[in-house]
Amino acid sequence: MENFQFSMPTKIIFGKNTQKKIGPETRKHTDKVLLHYGGGSIKKTGLYDEAVKSLKEHGIEITELSGVKPNPRLGLVKEGIEICRENGIDFILGIGGGSVLDSAKAIAVGVPYQGDVWDFYTEKAVVKEALPVGGVLTIPAAGSEASDGSVITNEQNNYKRAVVTGLIRPVFAIMNPEFTYSLPPYQTSCGASDIIAHVIERYFTRVKDVDLTDRLCESVIKTMVKYVPVVLEEPEDYEARAEIMWAGTVAHNGLLSTGRTGDWGSHMIEHEISAIYDIAHGAGLSIVVPAWMKYVYRSDIERFAQFASRVWNAETDFFNLEATALEGIEKLEQFYRRINLPTRLSDAKIGDEDFEAMAEKCLEFKKVGEYLELKKDDVINILNLAK
Amino acid sequence: MENFQFSMPTKIIFGKNTQKKIGPETRKHTDKVLLHYGGGSIKKTGLYDEAVKSLKEHGIEITELSGVKPNPRLGLVKEGIEICRENGIDFILGIGGGSVLDSAKAIAVGVPYQGDVWDFYTEKAVVKEALPVGGVLTIPAAGSEASDGSVITNEQNNYKRAVVTGLIRPVFAIMNPEFTYSLPPYQTSCGASDIIAHVIERYFTRVKDVDLTDRLCESVIKTMVKYVPVVLEEPEDYEARAEIMWAGTVAHNGLLSTGRTGDWGSHMIEHEISAIYDIAHGAGLSIVVPAWMKYVYRSDIERFAQFASRVWNAETDFFNLEATALEGIEKLEQFYRRINLPTRLSDAKIGDEDFEAMAEKCLEFKKVGEYLELKKDDVINILNLAK
Repeated sequence: MENFQFSMPTKIIFGKNTQKKIGPETRKHTDKVLLHYGGGSIKKTGLYDEAVKSLKEHGIEITELSGVKPNPRLGLVKEGIEICRENGIDFILGIGGGSVLDSAKAIAVGVPYQGDVWDFYTEKAVVKEALPVGGVLTIPAAGSEASDGSVITNEQNNYKRAVVTGLIRPVFAIMNPEFTYSLPPYQTSCGASDIIAHVIERYFTRVKDVDLTDRLCESVIKTMVKYVPVVLEEPEDYEARAEIMWAGTVAHNGLLSTGRTGDWGSHMIEHEISAIYDIAHGAGLSIVVPAWMKYVYRSDIERFAQFASRVWNAETDFFNLEATALEGIEKLEQFYRRINLPTRLSDAKIGDEDFEAMAEKCLEFKKVGEYLELKKDDVINILNLAK
Repeated sequence: MENFQFSMPTKIIFGKNTQKKIGPETRKHTDKVLLHYGGGSIKKTGLYDEAVKSLKEHGIEITELSGVKPNPRLGLVKEGIEICRENGIDFILGIGGGSVLDSAKAIAVGVPYQGDVWDFYTEKAVVKEALPVGGVLTIPAAGSEASDGSVITNEQNNYKRAVVTGLIRPVFAIMNPEFTYSLPPYQTSCGASDIIAHVIERYFTRVKDVDLTDRLCESVIKTMVKYVPVVLEEPEDYEARAEIMWAGTVAHNGLLSTGRTGDWGSHMIEHEISAIYDIAHGAGLSIVVPAWMKYVYRSDIERFAQFASRVWNAETDFFNLEATALEGIEKLEQFYRRINLPTRLSDAKIGDEDFEAMAEKCLEFKKVGEYLELKKDDVINILNLAK
């Protein structure tokens, strides 16, 4: 086990009717808020109206910035920064999924910074301060509601990059599983894929003796495998929606990283795909993760066999552990297909014409992969396995 | 799943050499500290010297209060409160196990309170403020390093009572597994029993649909079952000590309570035993928990069968689930015996002469048990099962 630091200061407020806490919780931090969200969905579900009512009842002045899209754009972030500066706003409330929260976090680091906020995403600058961010989650997926990360796409050059700093962990996250009932099946599945990938990136580590966190990781994946098919059948199953929503937070709040170094290569490769093709992140991951696994498993048969046995209940073939290891990868692919996600680039109508460019961009800023460090050829090989 | 709130703001600093952070972390909060600890063990291991050096290097004025005993006493807490008031001390640094940290927390709530600190433990008053507490953990057991609880014994009347409030969660917890190498085997086992009981109290719930947290609970118990025998054989196995130490924190930081209501009846019964007999808390629990299980399992065979199957790998007897359920209880008892803990009151030379008095005291302040609410006769029946 490696040395680590961990804390999870985000106040999670989870369950039915918790949207009534939006005003009271926000009021603890400010009386002037940027209300940041996507499009119509929070208006359709009534969450928007409830939020505005709760904020107003607590005397909070609201400035709105909507229009956040999946793979949130730098342009809107910059608009948000300007609005906050002009209006002296000192708190960002994001209502939506990971894209909204990531965009809110980007605005939060941008407001007090004199330079271009994109500097943080290209590692030209380090975040030293940030406005506080609150979140009201409607899509279990990115884990942004309690994570220290933000991923933004620069639409001018199709770069999709991340910032990680404890300063952007939301001060509160209000999570009512009922507001996920209206998620379309495909989006539900894409969110699930993102959650599972967050665990897989951590699970496959070269760090030895991390058994407790191995088991915690397995718990989260098993929960997803059990409940995602349930909600695809019955979108208003509260208990199943609740399990998925809480699993999404546990997957990415840092607990599953304690004492271990994750990989994150699949995420980095996927970012290049979704930056160019604008495919949903979760759909990109259900394509890349199995290909990545097929590329790396031979170097660590035991861990892949453990994954197969503990997560997928594969019977262990003690005389052919490789067969057991492969069964785990196959079961994961089957699961993705069962929840109607693509597992090949061809499923998403993506050809091989940009493999070179994606591999180059992927490697531009930093090391790709820890479990196996990937060079350009490795990335291309993985993309070829994903064809 | 029930609605819940959760956060875990304690900054965990875990691993080798982390004792070097004692000064720097404390300095963020104060330049005047009450250094609170037990007896000689931290002097023998060198931790005391390192702590004092680190604090002095960071310009922190130290006032000492040692002498904390297992089942920490109210008298010493009051002494600590006086010392802090007289010297204007605004930060308590506890170095030791759960008793030291619980005592530190009691001092922390007592200093700003005008009345008798015992009022908080008897629910005559509610904690409204507390000094910040930092912890350096040397015994994985109570989980106090990141929990919101403190248990104190009033030596004048043998009452052992708890306070629970987020205000006493330590601001940091420094945890180096190497400082647990010197724990004697019996104390290692007692700590393990406490950790396992913290999970069992949460695991056995009447709340339906709490599958993720069920699995997280099982992960912690399985980790303990695997690694406690390892450290009894090889006390300086860093990796096994680290797994146990981190499991102890995860067991009791609140994560495993999310969305569910635990029982805590066994803890309350045990508190009455150790208040009178001064038996180690973990040893009391390895006696009470199996007796409690035998008393309650019939009302929830499925959950006990799940416990047997998932934690103990018991083969499920689908035609006789009760047999499977009982196998789980039997395996737990076997485990306690394997790590040399008592499983009967007679093992600890405790007779039945105080059963009535213990049952009465147990029920004096509040409801005992949630999984099954226990009346006086139930408590006596459980104690009889533990004979």
